[in-house]
Amino acid sequence: MIQKIHSEFAIFRDDNYPFLAGGNKARKMMALHKTIEDNKYNAIVTTGGIQSNHCRVTALYCHKYNLDCTLVLHGDEEAFLTESGNAKIIRNTSTNIIFSEPDEISFNMDSAIDSYKTRGFNPFYLYGGGHTLEGTKAYIDVIEELLDEDYVPDYIFIANGTGSTHAGLLCGLAKFKLKTKVIGISVGRTKSRAEQVVESFCVELCEKYNITNKIGKIEVNDTFLCGGYGKYNDEIDTISKYSLSDHNIFLDTTYTGKTFYGMKKYIEQNAIKGKILFWYTGGIYNYLAR
Amino acid sequence: MIQKIHSEFAIFRDDNYPFLAGGNKARKMMALHKTIEDNKYNAIVTTGGIQSNHCRVTALYCHKYNLDCTLVLHGDEEAFLTESGNAKIIRNTSTNIIFSEPDEISFNMDSAIDSYKTRGFNPFYLYGGGHTLEGTKAYIDVIEELLDEDYVPDYIFIANGTGSTHAGLLCGLAKFKLKTKVIGISVGRTKSRAEQVVESFCVELCEKYNITNKIGKIEVNDTFLCGGYGKYNDEIDTISKYSLSDHNIFLDTTYTGKTFYGMKKYIEQNAIKGKILFWYTGGIYNYLAR
Repeated sequence: MIQKIHSEFAIFRDDNYPFLAGGNKARKMMALHKTIEDNKYNAIVTTGGIQSNHCRVTALYCHKYNLDCTLVLHGDEEAFLTESGNAKIIRNTSTNIIFSEPDEISFNMDSAIDSYKTRGFNPFYLYGGGHTLEGTKAYIDVIEELLDEDYVPDYIFIANGTGSTHAGLLCGLAKFKLKTKVIGISVGRTKSRAEQVVESFCVELCEKYNITNKIGKIEVNDTFLCGGYGKYNDEIDTISKYSLSDHNIFLDTTYTGKTFYGMKKYIEQNAIKGKILFWYTGGIYNYLAR
Repeated sequence: MIQKIHSEFAIFRDDNYPFLAGGNKARKMMALHKTIEDNKYNAIVTTGGIQSNHCRVTALYCHKYNLDCTLVLHGDEEAFLTESGNAKIIRNTSTNIIFSEPDEISFNMDSAIDSYKTRGFNPFYLYGGGHTLEGTKAYIDVIEELLDEDYVPDYIFIANGTGSTHAGLLCGLAKFKLKTKVIGISVGRTKSRAEQVVESFCVELCEKYNITNKIGKIEVNDTFLCGGYGKYNDEIDTISKYSLSDHNIFLDTTYTGKTFYGMKKYIEQNAIKGKILFWYTGGIYNYLAR
């Protein structure tokens, strides 16, 4: 849903996506639903940290649709068993958990897949973060929601992390021939690396979903990194601290808060005008984890 | 927003109300905004438990609109300082907290009001839960959202606690001349007491907002109480435990889960047909509190 703040600024509330407790990972998982059904998968193996939104979404999805689920989690096992947030939600599903050292994740995922096969299951191997072309298609399709709400912004600002959501939006805008510019604010990568990744995602998506219209300019800004992934400055810290009162959403210092800060600075520095849409991917569960 | 589950069943997602972190208390607080501005209040005193949704909303509201805020909280101070959920959100605002024994709440609220006046403030005394006619008007106005989404259900099921939201909906439906039946599922009160309270709220609301159309039947069902406020059975427990996977919302055992259970039983027992809307008022922050 689009929350209009004033005539020139709105927030896309992906946190309010109404399935699997919301957020961009939920949207991507539901976009995978048909693939899972078509292939008659009856188990999923995936991975993430103990507070992973993607793992929460996968656990809820499997419980809902009656698939077996194995999560290969990295992080503190004691914390997983006691923390709130995504960890608590995952604990309240019938999910198998394997704790893993980071460098043994692939091995443990492969073992879990083998174990399912031995037991006669048809398991789906889902990369950490849920990155698949079928899932990313959600961000091509989401453009229809903008059209349904009759809201076509001049600019979309989005966190650029792995770049897949950024790529999905670009392909969706191309599909519907919209001129909206997408500005990715990098949360960790250099501009050149990030833009390269978005470009190759776009090529794959356009090929798979038969999008032949020219995609818009790929633009990632890396000047608000504050030194790298996870780093932030006092202004980002303040934005984050008061985000729920000031903006009705929780903005963390690593992803969404940094992006919000980058957006503000970018708008000032480039004196851009027009309808601006901040793409909020979610994050309240991590905030409430401890 | 209305989440359509199938052709005969939908959920009103008041948890996704996009202000003050959502839920019915946020909607009521925003409906008070004009009253607060018109009266030039610059401070609010209210009360609730340490995990009160209403107190979270008031604290965020005051921070956002630059009002001073004093919460008179009852419950465990140590828990307030360490728990997540609403307590954590409140701690991240500039709110004054007074801990109080339950029987000293009125005294402490009065003292806080006096203290503000002495210091030259113009304070607003807000009853616990945020119950005001101006706030309840939000549930008259919300009927416009049903009309905007072109979704007029045959039945609305709602938790009947204090009865004010129930009353607001009845008055809103009358205002727009809709035939939707509202079934309140009591979470604690007897049918006769609950219906009496809804009726007197309706009289006050209709008078204040000049609604002259006849309001619909006031119906509260108290046969799913399981022994009283806070009590529940195994079925409610199961509904609650798997609510996020099964229904995408968190249903607790005291309010929303009991109502969901009551709705299911009521539909079976009365063999009702037609479009049914479950009114979900929120509750995830309490679930994530610990």
